[in-house]
This record gives sequence, C-alpha cells and structure tokens, in this order.
Amino acid sequence: MEKERLILITNDDGIHAKGLKALIKAVEPFGNLAIVAPDGPNSGMSHAITVKVPLRYKFFQNGNSKTYYSCNGTPVDCIKIAMTVILEKKPDLIVSGINHGSNSAASIFYSGTMAAAMEGSMIGIPSIGFSLTNHSHKADFTAAIKIISTIIEKTIQNGLPHGVALNVNIPDVDKNKIKGIKICRQTKGYWQEEFDKRTDPSRGDYYWLAGKFINLEPDAQDTDEWALKNNYVSVVPVPVDLTAYSFLNKLKKWNL
Amino acid sequence: MEKERLILITNDDGIHAKGLKALIKAVEPFGNLAIVAPDGPNSGMSHAITVKVPLRYKFFQNGNSKTYYSCNGTPVDCIKIAMTVILEKKPDLIVSGINHGSNSAASIFYSGTMAAAMEGSMIGIPSIGFSLTNHSHKADFTAAIKIISTIIEKTIQNGLPHGVALNVNIPDVDKNKIKGIKICRQTKGYWQEEFDKRTDPSRGDYYWLAGKFINLEPDAQDTDEWALKNNYVSVVPVPVDLTAYSFLNKLKKWNL
Repeated sequence: MEKERLILITNDDGIHAKGLKALIKAVEPFGNLAIVAPDGPNSGMSHAITVKVPLRYKFFQNGNSKTYYSCNGTPVDCIKIAMTVILEKKPDLIVSGINHGSNSAASIFYSGTMAAAMEGSMIGIPSIGFSLTNHSHKADFTAAIKIISTIIEKTIQNGLPHGVALNVNIPDVDKNKIKGIKICRQTKGYWQEEFDKRTDPSRGDYYWLAGKFINLEPDAQDTDEWALKNNYVSVVPVPVDLTAYSFLNKLKKWNL
Repeated sequence: MEKERLILITNDDGIHAKGLKALIKAVEPFGNLAIVAPDGPNSGMSHAITVKVPLRYKFFQNGNSKTYYSCNGTPVDCIKIAMTVILEKKPDLIVSGINHGSNSAASIFYSGTMAAAMEGSMIGIPSIGFSLTNHSHKADFTAAIKIISTIIEKTIQNGLPHGVALNVNIPDVDKNKIKGIKICRQTKGYWQEEFDKRTDPSRGDYYWLAGKFINLEPDAQDTDEWALKNNYVSVVPVPVDLTAYSFLNKLKKWNL
C-alpha cells in the first residue's frame, strides 16, 4: 500500500457514473486519489475544450485518501483545471474511465475518456484510459477491477514513455471467460452513420446521430476489435505525435 | 477547370467566417462545391460529435456551382451529416478551414478544423485542413489562397493514402515573405494552462481557459513550429491509425 503516490482520476460519463466508482475501487490501493470529473455526461466530447463559457469546479466529497471535485467542463478541461488550479502537486498517474462502452478502433477519436488520458501523456504523466464494451449505465464492472489492478501495477513498475498513453478495452463477459490481456494495434475502420430522421411538431426535420462500425480488417488477429470479439482485453499504446511517418518521404517527393 | 469533381468544405469558425470564404475562393476552380459548415463558432471542439441533442441543417445559399448548408453540430457532425444525409454522391475531396489561428503541434488535438479532415480521411476521402496563424476574425487570407491552390492541385494529382490527412498551417506574413512549403513532423510540446480566475457578483469563482504553448524542441528544423516561425508553410501528414508502433514491442515485454 503506497499512500504517497497521487493518482488523478477522470472520466467522460460524469462524476456519478458507476464506471467511475469501479475505477476508484481498482485504483485506491495504489495511492491517494484526486477525482476531478465532469458534472454530467460528456460522451462523444473527444479532446474538446471549453472556450465559450468559463469553467467552474466544486469540492464535492472527501473520503479516505480520496478527494472529489466536479467540473462543468469536458474531460480534457478536468485534466487542465486539475493540473493548474486544483492539485497542489503533480500527479504520478492519470487514469480515466471506466467508460460505459468500447473505445476501441475508430471510437478513440470521439472518446472523452481517451482524450483525457492523451492530454495526460502529452504533459509527461503516465496515463491510461479504461473502457468496458457495455453502454448500459448499469453495466457490470466486476471483472474489470482485477484487470485494471494488474495493468496499473505493471505501469507503475515499467513507466510509460512521454507522449504514449494506453487505451485499454475490456470485453463485457464473465470474469472466467476472459482469455487474457492482448497488446494490439488499432483496427482500421470507421463509423458509418445511419441518421435517425424525425419530424418535430412544427414540421421541422431533425436527425439523431446513430451508426455502426465498419471493420476493414475483421480477421486481423493483432487488432483491438479482434481481441475484444475473442474475449481478450485489448491494450493499444497511443501516441500524441500525430505524424504519419510512413507517408513523410512520399509526401516530400510531391515537390510542393 | 474540372466541374464534375465534388468538393466538400467545412470549418470550425462557422459558416460566416472570413477564412471559409477565402477557402471557397481557393478551391472553386477545382470543382463543384458543397459547403456544410457549423452555424456558429466551434473552435476547440476537436473530434466531438453531438449526441445529447439532435442535429438539424438548413439550406443556406446557392451560388455558381456552390451550395451552402449550415448545421447546428460540430465540424465532425457536418462531415457525417453531409456524407449520409445531404450529399447525393461521395465527394472527391474534403477541405476544412481556413482556420483563424494555428493548428500546428499539439493544437491539432483541440482543432475542429483538423478533426473534420481526419474524419474525411478515415472514410477514405483525400482530406486537408488549412489554418492561418492569426486568430483575428479580420485576418488577411490573401497569401493563403495561392498556397492552398498549389496544395490542392498536387493532392488531386497524387492522391492521399486511405487514413492520412494533411495538416497545413500558413504563417501570417506578407506573400513575398513566405519562403516556401515545408513537409514537417508534429512538434513535441503541449499547452500549459494559465487559467484566468475571476469572481462573479455572487462571489463564485470562475476560470477562463488560457495558456501558452511549450515547445519541447524549438530548434528542430523538421518540425511544424520551426517552419512557421521561419516563414515556411508547414505540411504534416496525419494518421488516423493511433497506434504508437514504436512502443508496441516494449509493451509486449511487460507480460500483461
């Protein structure tokens, strides 16, 4: 039990989410916890920051080696205001989640949970986002807790390079059905929209965003989607250097 | 003059932004244009999608080979609703911008302009985001137009790989001071917040997000920040595969 370590926790489902409580349970043996989470659901907020309205935070609850704050901003705002205004010292680790719903493959782009972890790794703090492949607010996070504990322990032992976060997705199956933890690459694919068109009482059309994931490589066993479909936990290391190095030399030959 | 080509245009500063008008001017010789842009400012919205309220769009204006729509969503929502609901055929090219303000280095993470381009490249359409390093709504985009025209022409000639977008930043200097176009990698660095704390009439504290960019490698001549500081246009190829391949093998040795 290491109680000097400071761990910053956030999520995108908000301060009252069941997944946040499960993450706290998994992480609390590893240090003192500062929870700075959005005051309501922020799914789909990606790496958005709040610039049109000011941020506010409130001290929410104090527990045994745990302090809770809620913030009116996005998950990335939570990291920023925690680092600059709320915390008195730099955290040793940032964890985000447990997200209600998968953040594998292209979903990482829309995810506030993963954006918070990436923001952390950008400033040089080992950061991990955790997600369970079940959207329900009643999702069962029991199996996740042991897995998270293992991954946290290994991360503390090994450290993470500056600018690399981990994207951990956990399949929504019974604990004894999980086959193990698999290091993966991000699956190639995209979300194909199927907007749900409706008409309001004033005869105006409106559209609810809905869609399905198109997996461009369903048989690739080194991808996160394959791992999850086959009951493995997927771990993808995620960079904050967004340079497509494989295309850099070809692009130079364009002679722009 | 190729008028069969369909080019989808969006931005994050909104349908009335001066930068959007400049981009339209640069791009209109290359095809028919469908402009689907947010109905107001969406700076800092990153890859956010709208899930709490439904989307609406309205036909806004029809010009010579140009059709305008505004949408109540984010830049990424604009791409999604354009692709699925508004457009009758798949666009040949997606361009986003011209952003009022730089999207170099870590700013790419917060940028709605670049998120729209990345969303396009995810679905296999050559996509480019353009930004000028001047935040003012009155910024002068004159020099940008010729540069954009050159880059569009080369992109049409060469194509772009599925899953690679271009992040183009243009220095805010006179046309004759621009030294050329430089292919770069993303600068390592991050935004350090300096929240502006104020107190409202009810004695509640609130915080405006503000900060400065910390460049961790100011002398690296192959980075976008160096290029812009030295009056070059920077072009960074951006992947939608967010796997930190350089760390994959080390991570496997953790034996998770």
